[in-house]
Amino acid sequence: MKVLGIDSASGIASVAVLDGEVVLAETRSETAGHRADLLVLVDTVCTAAGITARELDGVAIGAGPGTFTGLRIGMATAKGIAFAAQRPLWAVSSLAALAHAELEVDPTGVVVGVLDARRGEVYAGAYRSDARSITLVGEERVLPPRELVAFVAGLAAQRDETGSMTRGGARFTGDAADAYPELAQLPGAWARTPSGVSVAKLAIAGARVDVLVNGAPTYIRPSEAEVKYPDGVPGALRKR
Amino acid sequence: MKVLGIDSASGIASVAVLDGEVVLAETRSETAGHRADLLVLVDTVCTAAGITARELDGVAIGAGPGTFTGLRIGMATAKGIAFAAQRPLWAVSSLAALAHAELEVDPTGVVVGVLDARRGEVYAGAYRSDARSITLVGEERVLPPRELVAFVAGLAAQRDETGSMTRGGARFTGDAADAYPELAQLPGAWARTPSGVSVAKLAIAGARVDVLVNGAPTYIRPSEAEVKYPDGVPGALRKR
Repeated sequence: MKVLGIDSASGIASVAVLDGEVVLAETRSETAGHRADLLVLVDTVCTAAGITARELDGVAIGAGPGTFTGLRIGMATAKGIAFAAQRPLWAVSSLAALAHAELEVDPTGVVVGVLDARRGEVYAGAYRSDARSITLVGEERVLPPRELVAFVAGLAAQRDETGSMTRGGARFTGDAADAYPELAQLPGAWARTPSGVSVAKLAIAGARVDVLVNGAPTYIRPSEAEVKYPDGVPGALRKR
Repeated sequence: MKVLGIDSASGIASVAVLDGEVVLAETRSETAGHRADLLVLVDTVCTAAGITARELDGVAIGAGPGTFTGLRIGMATAKGIAFAAQRPLWAVSSLAALAHAELEVDPTGVVVGVLDARRGEVYAGAYRSDARSITLVGEERVLPPRELVAFVAGLAAQRDETGSMTRGGARFTGDAADAYPELAQLPGAWARTPSGVSVAKLAIAGARVDVLVNGAPTYIRPSEAEVKYPDGVPGALRKR
């Protein structure tokens, strides 16, 4: 199963082509903010993999939460490719993609993907490994960085009550420590960004939502456009 | 020659499929701000025209100037389609598309396309008919609405000096009168938005720029992202 995976929810865009678990090609933008170059990355990996869009079985997009501009460009690009190639488009959580990469290295415990949400907040989603792929623990949230530890402690307490304790404790990953240096004290692989490889693997494993052509990115927090046009930016999911 | 034409530079997105001069299908968004639905419009016109993306000879995109979000979504969508369909992508001026529609009705004189640029300014581009299509008079500009009449008078004076007087005077078209009601006093077909039909016709007539996969929209005025990342949003043309 050949899948193009794209994530542009953070400042760094990442794109990969996979054939099942095998990564045929991957690349990423070198500098933050170069999202206008997203299709250059797509072209690069497809050329390197020796594959045209029509030979893909599907396109997987990291649907956020993340930066609005990045999400919009990513989703629009992915939709255009899937439409013209007549292939399905699958959306996966960009926080899940972050956690997936860490859980591949060490499947124990809970990994919390944390991306800068600006305006003094972060997006956070806690995941653990399961038999097939990874599973969301609780809900993805937008919250101030200082509440992150309490958020994770709350999840752990919930899980203790159900008798399924987390093993290995919580680790953190994501770009939020760049914006909030105090977060770097928390354990984990900070400074990572969601990867197209993980987006594609999650889609292949079934941790995905089929996107219709009128699908929209996951914002969690309404964008300024949505605040301005409450009925305007259609289909945006405020909460997964 | 079958061409998909897209314009989302203004609040209203417009999409059409043409076979040469024949419009096979066209549609537009009913409400401003629904740009996340752009691919729904593309799907609608392709279905109505009974054509797949692979059967197109090219994709034409109104590359602005206009709203940053609209331009980014439009360009990303068009790039994705052109890439996956392995077809060329052509950019045309959205102000030219505005003027084109009016010059089709009445080819005399100069037509000035004017779009709301927000922050108290408008984008303006003056065009006249020529043997093949339409021609830019002077340069596209961003300027306060009160300077619009002087801008056009300046163009007319330039043209008088060269002996090629404008006939029929200047007419105005575009959405800027919605934001600046005083503009509605100027003659012309205000309240129009650039159409996918005109974008496609201009591309077919050759009034286009071939876009590489790393092409970027025409902003004229740097976006906030460009101000923040002066080397960040690559390839953006500040001035055509």
